[in-house]
Amino acid sequence: MGLDRFVNQAISEWMKGNGPESDIVISSRVRLARNLKNYPFPTLATDSQAISVVEEVRKALDQREMKNISHFELIQLEDMTELQKRVLVEKHLISPNLAQDSRKGAVVLSENESISIMVNEEDHLRIQCLYPGLQIYDAWKMASRIDDIFEAELDYAFDEKRGYLTSCPTNVGTGIRASVMVHLPALVISGQINRIISAITQVGLTVRGIYGEGSEALGNIFQISNQITLGQSEEDIIENLYGVVKQIIDHEKQARSLLLRDSRIQIEDRVGRAYGTLLHAKIIDSKEAMGRLSDVRLGIDLKMIDSISPNIFNELMVLIQPGFLQHYAGEMTPFERDIKRAEIIRRKLTQHSN
Amino acid sequence: MGLDRFVNQAISEWMKGNGPESDIVISSRVRLARNLKNYPFPTLATDSQAISVVEEVRKALDQREMKNISHFELIQLEDMTELQKRVLVEKHLISPNLAQDSRKGAVVLSENESISIMVNEEDHLRIQCLYPGLQIYDAWKMASRIDDIFEAELDYAFDEKRGYLTSCPTNVGTGIRASVMVHLPALVISGQINRIISAITQVGLTVRGIYGEGSEALGNIFQISNQITLGQSEEDIIENLYGVVKQIIDHEKQARSLLLRDSRIQIEDRVGRAYGTLLHAKIIDSKEAMGRLSDVRLGIDLKMIDSISPNIFNELMVLIQPGFLQHYAGEMTPFERDIKRAEIIRRKLTQHSN
Repeated sequence: MGLDRFVNQAISEWMKGNGPESDIVISSRVRLARNLKNYPFPTLATDSQAISVVEEVRKALDQREMKNISHFELIQLEDMTELQKRVLVEKHLISPNLAQDSRKGAVVLSENESISIMVNEEDHLRIQCLYPGLQIYDAWKMASRIDDIFEAELDYAFDEKRGYLTSCPTNVGTGIRASVMVHLPALVISGQINRIISAITQVGLTVRGIYGEGSEALGNIFQISNQITLGQSEEDIIENLYGVVKQIIDHEKQARSLLLRDSRIQIEDRVGRAYGTLLHAKIIDSKEAMGRLSDVRLGIDLKMIDSISPNIFNELMVLIQPGFLQHYAGEMTPFERDIKRAEIIRRKLTQHSN
Repeated sequence: MGLDRFVNQAISEWMKGNGPESDIVISSRVRLARNLKNYPFPTLATDSQAISVVEEVRKALDQREMKNISHFELIQLEDMTELQKRVLVEKHLISPNLAQDSRKGAVVLSENESISIMVNEEDHLRIQCLYPGLQIYDAWKMASRIDDIFEAELDYAFDEKRGYLTSCPTNVGTGIRASVMVHLPALVISGQINRIISAITQVGLTVRGIYGEGSEALGNIFQISNQITLGQSEEDIIENLYGVVKQIIDHEKQARSLLLRDSRIQIEDRVGRAYGTLLHAKIIDSKEAMGRLSDVRLGIDLKMIDSISPNIFNELMVLIQPGFLQHYAGEMTPFERDIKRAEIIRRKLTQHSN
């Protein structure tokens, strides 16, 4: 079975591709929440009902149209160790919720990990498509395509007036959550980020850290996603998000230009110190590491460092998370992890420098 | 004239030599305060009296015995720019006092700069001998030798009961100040330094920063010197200082061993971060630079870094001081100095790495 493949590589295949605006936009994601008419929501379902849901999904996967998209692997959460689950969370392939709370949960993963379908999370189905860079339309098209294929086989809980029914009322309607992960160091450094975030939230979008709700914006990375799922069409939701992200990209680019114009040496200093620290530190926690990696990534984008590939940043971002570190190097105390993390960063930065 | 030579090199020739205990003791210095009987102390002397004192010294230098020691250069302070004076202060060849306040002051320097005789500072004569490492006896022997040669030519102010008379009563008697400059990073890191300092002061010694009285202990460097000049023989003073310094060296060595035993990785981390920062920072003030250099020097001493020579530490310590930087690179704002300092450190560390 393919689980090993998914947990052994820190960076998903799809992430190695380059998308538009990839100096600022790390990835685009669309997730559709769907439920099956004839079963209670996962929190209320019995074990046997939950098992039946998984079997229904397995059947839906068997359709030729699905096979045309990719080979898919269905993995039951109960077949995974805690550590394997944690790694999938750190790779954004499953939610913390599915890893911790689901009974009879499962995940369906495509070959290159750009498609992940969670089964028996909060909803029966959470169809998620991930693309590198700003490709939110493509992510949505792919999610819709899978949704259509599934709908042909499965009986969705759908109400003419309310749309797709979901376990949590905030998802009712389109059941869509579209989000874009952006790296905004210049807006943070120049102190504009709070103003930007408050503007974003006023147009019906939310801003979170990289590991979802309540998580901190480590490494100056922000997830921007739609708040509203009811009363707007999917097209409107995607278009609104796309438009706002385009504006944020412009703001970040402008902030970077201003930093280069007015504070070039200070930015070079910040980037240099981050790079020197990552190359030579022997103990580093994940928060500091994310911050330093963000600085180095900015340095790469601003052509201050040309000896490392930008991809190393995306890879290290996952590689240095506690779960991945332990999967990679065995059970460790937090202090041992900080040592291992520093070692991995040193090794990767030295390997990948041209 | 030879002034250029003295201000162009950050590191005096004598400093390039290696003395005993040079992993902890940077240098040993003996200074004798002497005055001429027939002249008022410098603060009270007229210009013409001060000029006469300089001429008397010039005659004393002409003796064959002096020429056997070294070629000497007598330089009048009024022939120096402010910047040149500042450089000599930073090299410890003249005191801040001579640089700022002296009327008709002068300094006599030997070829390798290990001997410096200030004229018309607080006293008519301040004979100073500097040696690398722990060579306080040798420094004293050389100072006495010069003192004897001078005494043959000059009429010293000497009182049978009180000894050598000096401008400030704290120097009366032997007129000797012996001091040793030590690098004590492990005692600072392990939090023992305050206890050590208070113990030192209880045996009649004083502890200061590297630029004399009231100066901060930048870079974990401390000057330990005798407090008392009256009622003890020169031999006792030197012996007492030597004995105490030997004990401090033992304490520092023990603290280093303990750090290696109990906190090796933390020290490696500290050293690595300092090294990475010095190699990559673009802006650095002298206080931070001294601290980072101290960490790197500790790393060299503990064999954690083998790619740079310990001498680079002594050289950079002077090179990065404000005066030397400006002498080297022209008038600058403090901010420009911080940039230039970072540049020089990067260059030197890259040049000197094996």
